[in-house]
Amino acid sequence: DSNLKIFALNSNRPLAEKIAEHVGVELGKLSVDRFSDGEIQINIEESVRGDNVYVIQSTSAPVNDNLMELLIMVDALRRASAKTINVVIPYYGYARQDRKARSREPITAKLVANMLQNSGVDRVIALDLHAAQIQGFFDIPVDHLMGAPLLAEYFIKEGVADDAVVISPDHGGVTRARALAEFLKSPIAIIDKRRPRANVAQIMNIIGNVKGKKCIMIDDMIDTAGTITLGAQALIDAGAQEVYASCTHAVLSGPAIERLEKSPIKEVVVTDSIKLPAEKQIKKIKQVSVAPLIADAIKRINENRPVSPLFKRVFQ
Amino acid sequence: DSNLKIFALNSNRPLAEKIAEHVGVELGKLSVDRFSDGEIQINIEESVRGDNVYVIQSTSAPVNDNLMELLIMVDALRRASAKTINVVIPYYGYARQDRKARSREPITAKLVANMLQNSGVDRVIALDLHAAQIQGFFDIPVDHLMGAPLLAEYFIKEGVADDAVVISPDHGGVTRARALAEFLKSPIAIIDKRRPRANVAQIMNIIGNVKGKKCIMIDDMIDTAGTITLGAQALIDAGAQEVYASCTHAVLSGPAIERLEKSPIKEVVVTDSIKLPAEKQIKKIKQVSVAPLIADAIKRINENRPVSPLFKRVFQ
Ligand SMILES: Nc1ncnc2c1ncn2[C@@H]1O[C@H](COP(=O)(O)O)[C@@H](O)[C@H]1O
Ligand SMILES: Nc1ncnc2c1ncn2[C@@H]1O[C@H](COP(=O)(O)O)[C@@H](O)[C@H]1O
Repeated sequence: DSNLKIFALNSNRPLAEKIAEHVGVELGKLSVDRFSDGEIQINIEESVRGDNVYVIQSTSAPVNDNLMELLIMVDALRRASAKTINVVIPYYGYARQDRKARSREPITAKLVANMLQNSGVDRVIALDLHAAQIQGFFDIPVDHLMGAPLLAEYFIKEGVADDAVVISPDHGGVTRARALAEFLKSPIAIIDKRRPRANVAQIMNIIGNVKGKKCIMIDDMIDTAGTITLGAQALIDAGAQEVYASCTHAVLSGPAIERLEKSPIKEVVVTDSIKLPAEKQIKKIKQVSVAPLIADAIKRINENRPVSPLFKRVFQ
Repeated sequence: DSNLKIFALNSNRPLAEKIAEHVGVELGKLSVDRFSDGEIQINIEESVRGDNVYVIQSTSAPVNDNLMELLIMVDALRRASAKTINVVIPYYGYARQDRKARSREPITAKLVANMLQNSGVDRVIALDLHAAQIQGFFDIPVDHLMGAPLLAEYFIKEGVADDAVVISPDHGGVTRARALAEFLKSPIAIIDKRRPRANVAQIMNIIGNVKGKKCIMIDDMIDTAGTITLGAQALIDAGAQEVYASCTHAVLSGPAIERLEKSPIKEVVVTDSIKLPAEKQIKKIKQVSVAPLIADAIKRINENRPVSPLFKRVFQ
């Protein structure tokens, strides 16, 4: 019979440890190191012959290093005769480069999909891809998990859900806001941005009723936090009682932490799909773990049970 | 008719500029930037439709960033309808990971070859690959250039060639030493390392006559400079008059510069396949440019002439 083995690379060991705990296995023995010149050196320190292997790696910053670690690991696993190679990518880097918006642009999200597939990956487990279409960049099975139920659970437990309105920070995010609102049994509202002329300040118009309400903004990721902090101010200006921000992926690059600190946002609720370095662990940011969600997916895949109804189970 | 276009990525712009000058074209307009979170953003700022494109990029440190830049560029070129995509890789990173030396090791040099090929590269121009077998990792044409004639030219001009002995720093490098000796019309000698028992100092035995001679050590790369500086001392101890070190690829990581400074080596002659950052430009290190060699290869490829006799022409 095939063993289930879980290996953690360097991007997010704390999450990998939690996943292994929930699955009920020890993490596989592995050393991931650097040679003097910065090249990655991987040694798998136990047999994987005939095993069903799961590798946990977010391709968050430093994205190119984390991606190469993953690809080199898959190469080593394939050559070591693993039976199946399943990669868990809680945060999929380069996902925003998913189409040619202008001439002569790359589509790096597809390049990354090709690289993973060609290196010998059998299956991908992903979480809140920036665009669901990225699933179609692969010709192997992709399980696409959803963080919204976990975020909803947090807001319900904290008593924020009653009298809440879920806010989409832009037109593109309405479906995502709808999904969270479903779990919270809340109405939704949309921040409608317009720039009347070039080089003129944006006008933020709120479609829906937020007066006296607890507003919960949701996005797939918060990167530089520009959109979300400007939106929060617009909600306060429109009479919102409190503003919460939530997202699956806490990218938080550049001015993000400073902007969040200064903004009227009361709490920023994120998941641990990306490891939060110490300097980003500010009081306002609350983390919920996706480990139970991913662990459940791994167990279901390993037992040949369907993964899709998962998000409902976790929520109930 | 197809245009010949040369684009420089970020690893070695000075070399790319020299190559373009020798070919007689301007470098193509391109911006290679980083988003706030560190993801690479490439914009090709002129048409490449129907063109024969050459991209110059060494996958030196930071190797993963430089490799991803190259792959993303190739993706963008392919989608922009370039006629042929030729990548010039003066230094091929991960080349030492070219076989499984132990169980469960990756073969990253092959992974990189697959990545390049699958991203849409039509042809690779490489220089002194750590192992010539890496050519076989590709199923597309690989032109394998040789730096030895340029190094030989330097030693001849400087008057070191007369009464010189070319030294291979280990058994694996004898063929390379033989090639340089051919150009210099010199004899060769070999440093023969043995470790009588584990945890006992290595014994360096010199096979060949070096007494009173000018010794020119040659290797494909100098990385941490351990082998070459220990070897230089052994040559001095054996009565060598002067010791020179030479290599194609100046990796120079970790303690390399300090070791070279302290060693009895008189000059370290390297090429510009890897850009030397300011802090590594010490007086002892002399650089010869591979730009004429690569420019000649590009012109020959573009005119459908054979590339192989190249190293002789450059030398004469
Ligand atoms: N890492 C990144 N940071 C910021 N913007 C990006 C990044 N990657 C891609 N983009 C841009 O984001 C846009 C796509 O984002 P979206 O419209 O939200 O799907 C494209 O115009 C990309 O050029
Ligand atoms: N970047 C690197 N730095 C130092 N050693 C390496 C590097 N990459 C691979 N190696 C090791 O170098 C050995 C191959 O070198 P060689 O015997 O000279 O072909 C293998 O044992 C590799 O594990």
